[in-house]
Amino acid sequence: MEKFELHILGCGSALPTTRHFPTSQVLNVREKLFMIDCGEGAQMQLRKSKLKFSRLNHIFISHLHGDHCFGLLSLISTFGLLGRTADLHIHAPEGVEKLFQPMLDFFCNHLPYQVFFHEFSTNNPLEIYSDRSLTVTTIPLCHRIPCCGFLFEEKPRSRHIIRDMVDFYQVPVFELNRIKNGADYITPEGELIPNFKLTRAPYPVRKYAYCSDTIYYKNIIEQIRGVDLLFHEATFAQSEANRAKETFHTTAAQAGKIALDAGVGKLIIGHFSARYEEEDVLLKEAAAIFPHTILAKETLSVNL
Amino acid sequence: MEKFELHILGCGSALPTTRHFPTSQVLNVREKLFMIDCGEGAQMQLRKSKLKFSRLNHIFISHLHGDHCFGLLSLISTFGLLGRTADLHIHAPEGVEKLFQPMLDFFCNHLPYQVFFHEFSTNNPLEIYSDRSLTVTTIPLCHRIPCCGFLFEEKPRSRHIIRDMVDFYQVPVFELNRIKNGADYITPEGELIPNFKLTRAPYPVRKYAYCSDTIYYKNIIEQIRGVDLLFHEATFAQSEANRAKETFHTTAAQAGKIALDAGVGKLIIGHFSARYEEEDVLLKEAAAIFPHTILAKETLSVNL
Repeated sequence: MEKFELHILGCGSALPTTRHFPTSQVLNVREKLFMIDCGEGAQMQLRKSKLKFSRLNHIFISHLHGDHCFGLLSLISTFGLLGRTADLHIHAPEGVEKLFQPMLDFFCNHLPYQVFFHEFSTNNPLEIYSDRSLTVTTIPLCHRIPCCGFLFEEKPRSRHIIRDMVDFYQVPVFELNRIKNGADYITPEGELIPNFKLTRAPYPVRKYAYCSDTIYYKNIIEQIRGVDLLFHEATFAQSEANRAKETFHTTAAQAGKIALDAGVGKLIIGHFSARYEEEDVLLKEAAAIFPHTILAKETLSVNL
Repeated sequence: MEKFELHILGCGSALPTTRHFPTSQVLNVREKLFMIDCGEGAQMQLRKSKLKFSRLNHIFISHLHGDHCFGLLSLISTFGLLGRTADLHIHAPEGVEKLFQPMLDFFCNHLPYQVFFHEFSTNNPLEIYSDRSLTVTTIPLCHRIPCCGFLFEEKPRSRHIIRDMVDFYQVPVFELNRIKNGADYITPEGELIPNFKLTRAPYPVRKYAYCSDTIYYKNIIEQIRGVDLLFHEATFAQSEANRAKETFHTTAAQAGKIALDAGVGKLIIGHFSARYEEEDVLLKEAAAIFPHTILAKETLSVNL
C-alpha cells in the first residue's frame, strides 16, 4: 500500500518544555510531504526525522499563534541554504503574508526559490489543496483567534487490474485504463468479460483529520466522521475543564468524546499543557471514552 | 569569588544540525544573566540550562542574520506566558525594532511586561550597557552585514578589608568605605595606619569578549587584548580558507592566531559549519596555534 504516514515533530503547547517542542507535524502521502503547523524548532525536528526536505512543498498553518508558526522563518531560511529551487507554498489564515513577508524580505532576501502565501478564511470548510491523489480541506475550529484544522483525504483510486486474468483474455494495453475505471471487456470474438473478473476493488481511501487548537466543538463531528486517524488537541485534563473553556482548548475526555461521536478509526492526542509532567493522565482519560487513543510524542510516526 | 560564568546554549552556524542549535549564549555575572544572540530554540536551551529566566533582563544581538535572532519572538512570548513583569531590553544593530515590533504587536500583544529595543551603530566601539559591576562595549566586526561582538568587562572593585586588622585597630564602621577605596586610617591617637595593612588588593577584573560572525579581522586585537576568555567564531577549517573569506567567516587557525596575538587567557571556538561532523579538526587547528583552546558545546559552561 502506498505511504500515508503521520510524523509528529512537536506536540507541546504554547509554553515549551524540555520534553516537547511546540506544534508541528508532517504527513507523508505517497512520498509527498505536507507540513502541518510549524512551531519553533520544526526544521530541527524535521532534520531528526530523516524526512527529505525536498519532498516538502506545502505547509498548512492552523492559526497565527506563535507556537504554531514561529518556526517558519528558520525553515524557509534553511531551505534556502540547502539550495532549494522548488516553490514553497504556505497555506494560512488571512494576515500571514503581511506579517511574514517583511521578515522574509529582510532575512531571506536571496532565496534561490520562491515562497507563496495562500491565505484562507476560516469560517467555512474550503478545499485549499488538491493534486492527483489528495485533497486538503479546512475544518473550521473555535479558538481565540481565527483557526481551522485540516482534513487530508485521498482521492478515490481506480480498480486494481488482476494481471493473470488480463493475460488470460489477452486484453490489449490500450483497454487497461477503461477497465481500471470499471468498464467490461469485449473480446474480438464478441464475448463480454465483466469487470469484476478482471479487477479487484481499490484500497479504500484514507483520511486524516488534524484539529488544533479548539474549544470542545461538536460542529466538527460531521466533517471528520469516519476518518482513519484524528489528531485532536487535549491541552488539559478534565479537572481543568474550566481553564480549557476559558482558553478555548479541549480536555482529553472531550477529545475522546469527539473521536467516539465521529466514529474515527484512531485518535491521537497532543498539544499538551506544560503542567503535565506525565501525560498518562490525559491518555487514560481519553481512552476511557475512546479506547483506540494514543499519545502524540516527538519522533512518533503513525502509518495508516 | 562572585559568579562570572559563560553558558553555551547553541554553537552551530546558519544551517542547524542534529548536533547543534544556532548561536546563543548566556553570561552570568553575579547572578545577573546576559543573553548574547538568540538563535532558534534559545528559550528551549535556556530552560534546559536551568538558568533562571527572571534573572535575564538584557539581550545583546550581534547582527541581524536569522541564526542569531530568530529565537527572539518565542523567547519574548514565553516570558509573557510565564508572567514576567520586568522590562526586557534588547540591544541590537539598527533596524531591529522596525523588523520585530510589528511581529510583537501581533503575536505578543498582551504581554505583562515591556520590551525595549536599543539600537546601536556597529561602526565604532560603543559602551551600550553599564551597571554597578559591569560594562558592555561593542566590538566592531567585519561581516556581510553590520555586525559587532561584545566586550563584557567587570568594573574595578574596591579593596578587600582585612577583618582582623580592622578589628585590631578598632576602625569605626563609617571609615570602611574610604578604606576600601584606598585611604589610610588615622587612629584617635594620631597614628597613621597605611592602607596596605588594612586591605588586600581586589580580585582582578574579569573580561569576556564575544566575536561572531566575522572575517579574520585583526582590528579587534587591541580591544580584546588580555581578556580572560575569548569566544571567537571558527566556522571553517583552514582547508576552507577561501570559503571562509568569501562568506566573511573565520577559520579555526585564524581564531587561534587572534587569540595568540591578543594574549587572551582562554579561547573558546564555535559557530561550526554543518559540514564538520566532528569538530576535533577545528580544535586541533586552533590549539596548534593557541593551546588554551576549547570547543564550544551545547550545555557547556565556563567559569572564570
